[in-house]
Amino acid sequence: MGNIYIALVHWPVYNREGETVATSVTPLDLHDIGRIALTYGVAGYYVTNPYESQRRLVEEIIYHWREGIGGEHSPQRQRALSGAKVVATAEAAFDDVAALEGVEPFVAATTARRMPGALPTRELADAAGGRPVLLLFGTGYGLTEDLLLAADAALEPIAGRGDFNHLPVRAAVAIYLDRIFNGNVRSETEE
Amino acid sequence: MGNIYIALVHWPVYNREGETVATSVTPLDLHDIGRIALTYGVAGYYVTNPYESQRRLVEEIIYHWREGIGGEHSPQRQRALSGAKVVATAEAAFDDVAALEGVEPFVAATTARRMPGALPTRELADAAGGRPVLLLFGTGYGLTEDLLLAADAALEPIAGRGDFNHLPVRAAVAIYLDRIFNGNVRSETEE
Repeated sequence: MGNIYIALVHWPVYNREGETVATSVTPLDLHDIGRIALTYGVAGYYVTNPYESQRRLVEEIIYHWREGIGGEHSPQRQRALSGAKVVATAEAAFDDVAALEGVEPFVAATTARRMPGALPTRELADAAGGRPVLLLFGTGYGLTEDLLLAADAALEPIAGRGDFNHLPVRAAVAIYLDRIFNGNVRSETEE
Repeated sequence: MGNIYIALVHWPVYNREGETVATSVTPLDLHDIGRIALTYGVAGYYVTNPYESQRRLVEEIIYHWREGIGGEHSPQRQRALSGAKVVATAEAAFDDVAALEGVEPFVAATTARRMPGALPTRELADAAGGRPVLLLFGTGYGLTEDLLLAADAALEPIAGRGDFNHLPVRAAVAIYLDRIFNGNVRSETEE
């Protein structure tokens, strides 16, 4: 499989009432997802938000930990944000990956909803066929159906054992990356 | 495999300097881990802290969401904390599980460190042999070696692809539970 990139998408996502909105950035998401991404060797981590004021806030947080005094206090937080970039939209993340890699990434969106034709995570590598992969994660109440349908694939939801279906996005990132990389590590070991 | 219980341990754990300390409760951990536990059908979720003031704080947070006005605002948070209990120590969690189940649980501790004889997560069900399982997760810089050695097993760490080794405990809970239950679901499907 090619390099994996992730994007934490703040628009377009649903709110509790099912309306399409832009959510505000949760600073904790930046740190948690940065740590998870670094653990699994993700090639790049995009934070997307259409509002310039929100992007500036994220840039300031990243600067504080990566270049400013925060990094002296916590080298782990410094490293965890080393691969983070701030862009306006998922499309801008797509364009950046395409420019970096010289080939358009395979876009795999994630959702807690059951979508017809959803791709099992273990089949992602075959579906991507050697192209880099851009994984989209929605904040709020999840990526809109329009965005899910625009992606090359929607990954199968993380099925729990009951009807509760509200994992924090931080946990969803951890679980999907573990399934992707752990599955790969396991098959490499077995060969 | 029997029922799975988890304990979020605030003492004894290491701090950054490697000293044994009690950490303070992070309210976000309660909600995130509650959601993850409910998703995977965990039978009980213990928050352990030796300080009465900290236990009282956690009780108040749980009460707010489970019985108080918080639950009206967010039924999901209400449900996510429905299985949470507050106790002083991991031993107290062990005793509670033993009383509930009528049999002592198999205690599996988690750590980011490589321990000799660590148990691969996929072998946990066999090692537990039908007994309930109590999973221990350390806050701060992880469970102390004494506690790891006192457990029936230390699970193999979550190996990433680089040398970065500092997942948030919230992410570690998500990944271990997914490996335990997803592994089981998969083998049931194959049979």
